[in-house]
Amino acid sequence: MDINYVSSLLKEFKAGGLSLDEALEKLKILPYEDLEFAKLDHHRLLRQGFAEVVFCQGKTVAQVLAIMDRLAAYNRNILATRATPEMYEAVKNSMPDAKYHELARLIAIERQPPPADQDRVILVMSAGTSDIPVAEEAAVTAEMMGNVVRRVYDVGVAGIHRLLDQRKLIEDANVLIVVAGMEGALVSVVGGMAAKPVIAVPTSIGYGANFGGLSALLSMLNSCAAGIGVVNIDNGFGAGRLASIINHMR
Amino acid sequence: MDINYVSSLLKEFKAGGLSLDEALEKLKILPYEDLEFAKLDHHRLLRQGFAEVVFCQGKTVAQVLAIMDRLAAYNRNILATRATPEMYEAVKNSMPDAKYHELARLIAIERQPPPADQDRVILVMSAGTSDIPVAEEAAVTAEMMGNVVRRVYDVGVAGIHRLLDQRKLIEDANVLIVVAGMEGALVSVVGGMAAKPVIAVPTSIGYGANFGGLSALLSMLNSCAAGIGVVNIDNGFGAGRLASIINHMR
Amino acid sequence: MDINYVSSLLKEFKAGGLSLDEALEKLKILPYEDLEFAKLDHHRLLRQGFAEVVFCQGKTVAQVLAIMDRLAAYNRNILATRATPEMYEAVKNSMPDAKYHELARLIAIERQPPPADQDRVILVMSAGTSDIPVAEEAAVTAEMMGNVVRRVYDVGVAGIHRLLDQRKLIEDANVLIVVAGMEGALVSVVGGMAAKPVIAVPTSIGYGANFGGLSALLSMLNSCAAGIGVVNIDNGFGAGRLASIINHMR
Amino acid sequence: MDINYVSSLLKEFKAGGLSLDEALEKLKILPYEDLEFAKLDHHRLLRQGFAEVVFCQGKTVAQVLAIMDRLAAYNRNILATRATPEMYEAVKNSMPDAKYHELARLIAIERQPPPADQDRVILVMSAGTSDIPVAEEAAVTAEMMGNVVRRVYDVGVAGIHRLLDQRKLIEDANVLIVVAGMEGALVSVVGGMAAKPVIAVPTSIGYGANFGGLSALLSMLNSCAAGIGVVNIDNGFGAGRLASIINHMR
Amino acid sequence: MDINYVSSLLKEFKAGGLSLDEALEKLKILPYEDLEFAKLDHHRLLRQGFAEVVFCQGKTVAQVLAIMDRLAAYNRNILATRATPEMYEAVKNSMPDAKYHELARLIAIERQPPPADQDRVILVMSAGTSDIPVAEEAAVTAEMMGNVVRRVYDVGVAGIHRLLDQRKLIEDANVLIVVAGMEGALVSVVGGMAAKPVIAVPTSIGYGANFGGLSALLSMLNSCAAGIGVVNIDNGFGAGRLASIINHMR
Amino acid sequence: MDINYVSSLLKEFKAGGLSLDEALEKLKILPYEDLEFAKLDHHRLLRQGFAEVVFCQGKTVAQVLAIMDRLAAYNRNILATRATPEMYEAVKNSMPDAKYHELARLIAIERQPPPADQDRVILVMSAGTSDIPVAEEAAVTAEMMGNVVRRVYDVGVAGIHRLLDQRKLIEDANVLIVVAGMEGALVSVVGGMAAKPVIAVPTSIGYGANFGGLSALLSMLNSCAAGIGVVNIDNGFGAGRLASIINHMR
Amino acid sequence: MDINYVSSLLKEFKAGGLSLDEALEKLKILPYEDLEFAKLDHHRLLRQGFAEVVFCQGKTVAQVLAIMDRLAAYNRNILATRATPEMYEAVKNSMPDAKYHELARLIAIERQPPPADQDRVILVMSAGTSDIPVAEEAAVTAEMMGNVVRRVYDVGVAGIHRLLDQRKLIEDANVLIVVAGMEGALVSVVGGMAAKPVIAVPTSIGYGANFGGLSALLSMLNSCAAGIGVVNIDNGFGAGRLASIINHMR
Amino acid sequence: MDINYVSSLLKEFKAGGLSLDEALEKLKILPYEDLEFAKLDHHRLLRQGFAEVVFCQGKTVAQVLAIMDRLAAYNRNILATRATPEMYEAVKNSMPDAKYHELARLIAIERQPPPADQDRVILVMSAGTSDIPVAEEAAVTAEMMGNVVRRVYDVGVAGIHRLLDQRKLIEDANVLIVVAGMEGALVSVVGGMAAKPVIAVPTSIGYGANFGGLSALLSMLNSCAAGIGVVNIDNGFGAGRLASIINHMR
Repeated sequence: MDINYVSSLLKEFKAGGLSLDEALEKLKILPYEDLEFAKLDHHRLLRQGFAEVVFCQGKTVAQVLAIMDRLAAYNRNILATRATPEMYEAVKNSMPDAKYHELARLIAIERQPPPADQDRVILVMSAGTSDIPVAEEAAVTAEMMGNVVRRVYDVGVAGIHRLLDQRKLIEDANVLIVVAGMEGALVSVVGGMAAKPVIAVPTSIGYGANFGGLSALLSMLNSCAAGIGVVNIDNGFGAGRLASIINHMR
Repeated sequence: MDINYVSSLLKEFKAGGLSLDEALEKLKILPYEDLEFAKLDHHRLLRQGFAEVVFCQGKTVAQVLAIMDRLAAYNRNILATRATPEMYEAVKNSMPDAKYHELARLIAIERQPPPADQDRVILVMSAGTSDIPVAEEAAVTAEMMGNVVRRVYDVGVAGIHRLLDQRKLIEDANVLIVVAGMEGALVSVVGGMAAKPVIAVPTSIGYGANFGGLSALLSMLNSCAAGIGVVNIDNGFGAGRLASIINHMR
Repeated sequence: MDINYVSSLLKEFKAGGLSLDEALEKLKILPYEDLEFAKLDHHRLLRQGFAEVVFCQGKTVAQVLAIMDRLAAYNRNILATRATPEMYEAVKNSMPDAKYHELARLIAIERQPPPADQDRVILVMSAGTSDIPVAEEAAVTAEMMGNVVRRVYDVGVAGIHRLLDQRKLIEDANVLIVVAGMEGALVSVVGGMAAKPVIAVPTSIGYGANFGGLSALLSMLNSCAAGIGVVNIDNGFGAGRLASIINHMR
Repeated sequence: MDINYVSSLLKEFKAGGLSLDEALEKLKILPYEDLEFAKLDHHRLLRQGFAEVVFCQGKTVAQVLAIMDRLAAYNRNILATRATPEMYEAVKNSMPDAKYHELARLIAIERQPPPADQDRVILVMSAGTSDIPVAEEAAVTAEMMGNVVRRVYDVGVAGIHRLLDQRKLIEDANVLIVVAGMEGALVSVVGGMAAKPVIAVPTSIGYGANFGGLSALLSMLNSCAAGIGVVNIDNGFGAGRLASIINHMR
Repeated sequence: MDINYVSSLLKEFKAGGLSLDEALEKLKILPYEDLEFAKLDHHRLLRQGFAEVVFCQGKTVAQVLAIMDRLAAYNRNILATRATPEMYEAVKNSMPDAKYHELARLIAIERQPPPADQDRVILVMSAGTSDIPVAEEAAVTAEMMGNVVRRVYDVGVAGIHRLLDQRKLIEDANVLIVVAGMEGALVSVVGGMAAKPVIAVPTSIGYGANFGGLSALLSMLNSCAAGIGVVNIDNGFGAGRLASIINHMR
Repeated sequence: MDINYVSSLLKEFKAGGLSLDEALEKLKILPYEDLEFAKLDHHRLLRQGFAEVVFCQGKTVAQVLAIMDRLAAYNRNILATRATPEMYEAVKNSMPDAKYHELARLIAIERQPPPADQDRVILVMSAGTSDIPVAEEAAVTAEMMGNVVRRVYDVGVAGIHRLLDQRKLIEDANVLIVVAGMEGALVSVVGGMAAKPVIAVPTSIGYGANFGGLSALLSMLNSCAAGIGVVNIDNGFGAGRLASIINHMR
Repeated sequence: MDINYVSSLLKEFKAGGLSLDEALEKLKILPYEDLEFAKLDHHRLLRQGFAEVVFCQGKTVAQVLAIMDRLAAYNRNILATRATPEMYEAVKNSMPDAKYHELARLIAIERQPPPADQDRVILVMSAGTSDIPVAEEAAVTAEMMGNVVRRVYDVGVAGIHRLLDQRKLIEDANVLIVVAGMEGALVSVVGGMAAKPVIAVPTSIGYGANFGGLSALLSMLNSCAAGIGVVNIDNGFGAGRLASIINHMR
Repeated sequence: MDINYVSSLLKEFKAGGLSLDEALEKLKILPYEDLEFAKLDHHRLLRQGFAEVVFCQGKTVAQVLAIMDRLAAYNRNILATRATPEMYEAVKNSMPDAKYHELARLIAIERQPPPADQDRVILVMSAGTSDIPVAEEAAVTAEMMGNVVRRVYDVGVAGIHRLLDQRKLIEDANVLIVVAGMEGALVSVVGGMAAKPVIAVPTSIGYGANFGGLSALLSMLNSCAAGIGVVNIDNGFGAGRLASIINHMR
């Protein structure tokens, strides 16, 4: 981040050469910090309401550490996804308040949790026990972004009464995240039960012709229930982020 | 069919050179009629309980006509699938009692309907109205093979109460055929409701990423409910045939 | 629809045997009308906020007409998607106030347009001119469900200045629908510009290795920008419906 | 499981407020036990004739153990599929009568084997020796659900006489399970030999363009023999379950 | 073709500057005729034993006519594949002895049929009647290249006795061409019956998940019988050509 | 296009408020003309060296006409790809100097052909006659953008001498465009013959398992020869454009 | 193998009850040995000219050992493919004359090498060094089945002179096996050079969009050169077997 | 390499039997060195401007060592791609000046770096940090072939300002290499910003439905920006090579 740029910008604002709106606008768009192997978008917090999230897959431990270190200098809450235990070890040494959500493979630093509206609940549902890691990635992401999250796991449609039993929870929720592998039918049944935004997350759980989650993905895209937005296979983070954006709308 | 062969075989039987079982066995396995472009398996009726069924796709009108003509010489009930109206016109000229099921694209000649057990019902369900042509192919096939068939159409899971309302019909049925396109979720919900054989038929109905029925096919193969056998996309005939075989078991 | 059932239910309510909530609850779940080839979910209006929408593909003209006729008996606003001109002719004869959106292939009957909040705008963007039919399907759907819709077409990323020029419109919108074929990159750029719900609609526009929209679909699912929900290829209706649900949240 | 619910239900039955049928009906549909990460469907035994089966893939050892422990409290016979040796070790410690079928990767607890009709045999055939693990999963599943099972392995069609030699076994069987990898041709030949339900199980055995079992799967779906129901790739359990349901029909 | 080049080459040969072998060698490699839109490889007859074959798909009628016209100037026997009736009309006008094989879509000019060894028979088998057009493309191709061809059609494995009945024909043949759609199982059974070269031709006949012939193609590539060479889907010509090459080996 | 904006910009430049570079820079980035259904990027000529090219597929005739009409107001040379004869008729009425390249499906208006360097030749090669339409799309595109183009068609590798014979042409060329369907092997052989940029264009020509050009596409991407850039299937325009850009480098 | 059956059969022959032909015929078709997990086809030697070959993938070490042990009791030469070093260790203990071809993963026991015709050479060519393991599987297989094999490796088309240099070897060969990964273009060039049977073996060598050998497979199936038979990806054994069958034709 | 051949060739040249051009021509085409498992194309340096590059995947350590050893005898600069650390260890022992680029998995021997034109810069851009290994493979390859390379990493389109900020670098570059995984949108935005050759490299970075890089590959092939050549997934080497060829054009 070019500190000089921001300085001069702020001085100009103080001197009246920039209105408040103009200054905010400029801050929203420009600066980032260049680490050579990464360009940190420090002002994403302003533009998108949450700091840049580190996608760890394919990065070296050293890269993850350096990026989180720099993000920590400008933000109070930081999230890293698809993190290995080894990455967590390195991060914890440098930032002892980092927490590791093992199932969800998330590293989280939460120094000043954002406030959450208790009346607007995000409900995370999973079809099976095996889908829980992805569901947790979604749930923890949404919590860190300032949302109240409720979880209902293992309510797949083969035992429809388990699902119908959750009708009250579904009606009380503001946004639904539905996580399912295999044939992903849970999404269609839930989608037909309520007029709420449903975010569908296909998982790679299953075997044979599920082809790494393709079966659930195609199912969800082709759902006979309208009002469903689908994210990538196993992309709990994306679902949590989208749910949070919707949930913060006024 | 080599009529001489059968004659000598029967004479041998009469003369005591063959036991009844031996004669039946021989009749079961050997003869067929050679039309050059087709080899008619006239004794399929003995071996499989129903005459050879004509799959019309890719055949010329003349071929379909010749095959049906020869089959009619040896069988009372004949079925042709994927038949065009043009084929039907040709067949009707020669066999005026032929009937055309337009939606299902079947030509049927039924001179001596096989008896059907009224207590053993095959229930054919479709998720949507658009799936009816395939469902009808299954239903008519099963009827022609001597089964009582009930139909319940347009009970997709997006309106789960429409489906739950059919519980009584499902419990009263002996075998279930579930026909669905799009995401095919109906199969999983039905499969979880009863311990009956469920035959799942994916259809090519849908658009976008249904990829000609692939989405429904993968859904059904990956169903979280056990006890489901899947047939080919749009293969109503295969489903009707399998249901009939199961329904005739004692 | 079992009119007797509803009668007795209402009488019971009047007599005090049911509270208001109980009556609403019962009405929400049960009745539908059985046309044999279709089961009309008349109370979807109560449960989901809009009447059942007719998906015309794979249905006969007669079926579409009968369904719309019955829906018209219970609803003021009706929508049919993927309708052919031939279907529209039949519908118009029976319901002269039906309108045909030719590009979007929608039949719409709008006798009592639902009120729309002028401050909550849904912005529909298309990457190219060829994507407009799908974009219009989304836009008209959202309008019929009571939303103010703005359209910005042909702002694909190959001329990034055309897109950046729309920043004000993007910031003023409440929900974004982004329609794109080919490589669908528009979604990622828009997704990175604002913290709003982005509904991504891949189209089948393109040639060669777009494989009927697969390229845009995979692009959107794999977008590096978070906060994106994807619907099926060419599924403008689904996008309009989801956008409307989100836009009506309070 | 809500024990209070069941208590009150039973009391009501005793007091005459519920008929026997009504009580059974209610028990069939409602209760399950909530372990947070899993919702155990204890009454599946009533509804489907066999207790819930544990699909171990994607679950932690602790989860598998807890689920089996609770199931064991309510059922005499329990089955877990896709179990690792490590899971078995944990289960055996807690339930010493658990048995591990190594090839089939099944954990089985069989305290009160269900009775099996000796005259109704399920015949499990495999095309090759390498398909045996999947075939065994099917066979053991069927046995645990109360069926007599016979096995004929390595009868692939490249040596057709080995298969024709099994004609007697095929004729004596009630239901056929055919397990094959590579090109799965065994299904079509067997399907043409007898009018019995054939359950086809494609396996992932093979190399090159078998694409993880896709070649066998497509073969079986496209079989020229009618009367075949296909299950997912390597899904021996599903085949055994379906065969058992069919075999128990009267 | 550069006629001067050949002239000088031949003169040099006559004058003794080139041995016979050298002259043949040069003729084998170099000349072709340039029509701008096509480069006719007139000496393919020398190099490969048969003149260049015209693949008509994607060519205009005028191009096909011009190419055949030039080929006819240098060759006695000419073959064009995937020819439309319209192309044939144009060709017949110019070359009245051209013949059209309608089913096989071949145009053939045969002015001096090559001699065929009566003891070396190519047997062309088809699984179904619908596969005959592809089988005929193979058969006619092989005949034009100087082979005795026998045909056996409609011997699919669902009626295995029809196939076993052909054992004598199979044993008498020198090379086998097996044409099959759907699941293509015929190839594996035939491949296991004899130690002959088997050329497998998948066809696009079938429906649903045959995916344009993919099911038969994968089946044949994964055949459990060894000694099978596969050609492209519906490529009867390629099969006939390969069979002819093998059949002419000494 | 906001003509006022450009006016004021130019006035400012004249008055000295903008340097030449600044003025050019501003012109390069901002203006476009808004036709509602299309946003014409009139300054693409400055930024990319050629006016916006109209991709006609999926557009209505009226849209194509309106776009070309507006482009013609600001540019001397205009190109439209994937144009139908019907579109051409409409355009010719309004712009009589428009020319239609039927094979290549291009509409071209060339009022002031850009100069072309005679020493820098782009060589367009096709493997077969059937690939010529795509090859012509590439060739005409390159010519319109100011390049000398040479064509060599029907030099597929099955007659390698026809190809080796073109060595001189290959060596004399500056950039190579290689167009091939089926297995696309021509690219690898040409790629190994010279150290020139090779632009590979897979075509959808072929049948059976070419899967609409997938076989040639994968071949070219996996070419064992380095130095090859691949464009989309049948994308002659893209190849011509890329070749032109490379050919104009100094 | 039912030794009694063979005994009685031979006695009957001796006694004149069977002619020589009849005896051979019966021996050709019936006997095999049943190991429960495998049915050994001991008379494949008579029927197909070589003993059953063991496909080791998916079998346990104990199964491989038992099968080879039994085969060794009836045959002099035995081949096992896809064998691991661990399997070889077990086999060598029991049959010390077993040899391991490490690259090709073959176990070979050759006690009486079949005679090979020195004038009929099979030429095995590979496009790259990395394809050698598959090429060796083909070469060793052919040698064990009584053929003279020559190898030419690393002659891919990117250096076409390396390939043209082998013209003499190609002309001297009787059958060609061409092994190639990546884009597999070698097959088309070789196929155009000579009128010999070409057996094409795609390999999984390559990266990125070769998709496990799919690119080479599709290339070879779509080859513009006729006279090519393709085997499965990496299936060196199948190629060697087919080449041997062709090479033994008279 | 046949040293005698070159000797006689040169003698002939000296004696006047060959002109200089003829001698060069002959040297360009013929010689290579035969290591049995590899045929080294030593004169590729003459023909293509750089020595043969070793593709290590699928080769044994011994093979890599032997090939590099021989190449080192005739060339000053050598490159090996996809090399493991183990291969590097072996090479370093024999050639101590070998360098290992760990991220890029390249072994490089650079004894006489080729001169590079400082005014013609190749710019390598990556969308994310995780794409750097592939980007480095491209960058190092281009550097070794005599080019000045600049790198800009982590400028994906989700933060468009980071990319727009690089406009100056883009304008100063001669050739662009754009490396991106996930949805690969960076290519389209960059492609629209400048009229330079853009070489697009899809990477396998991402998860879920990126299917090993397929999403980025299809995106890039379908880019709405013209002037883009795509190489194989993760093929940094190919991109560097193509960029170098283009960059050396005059």
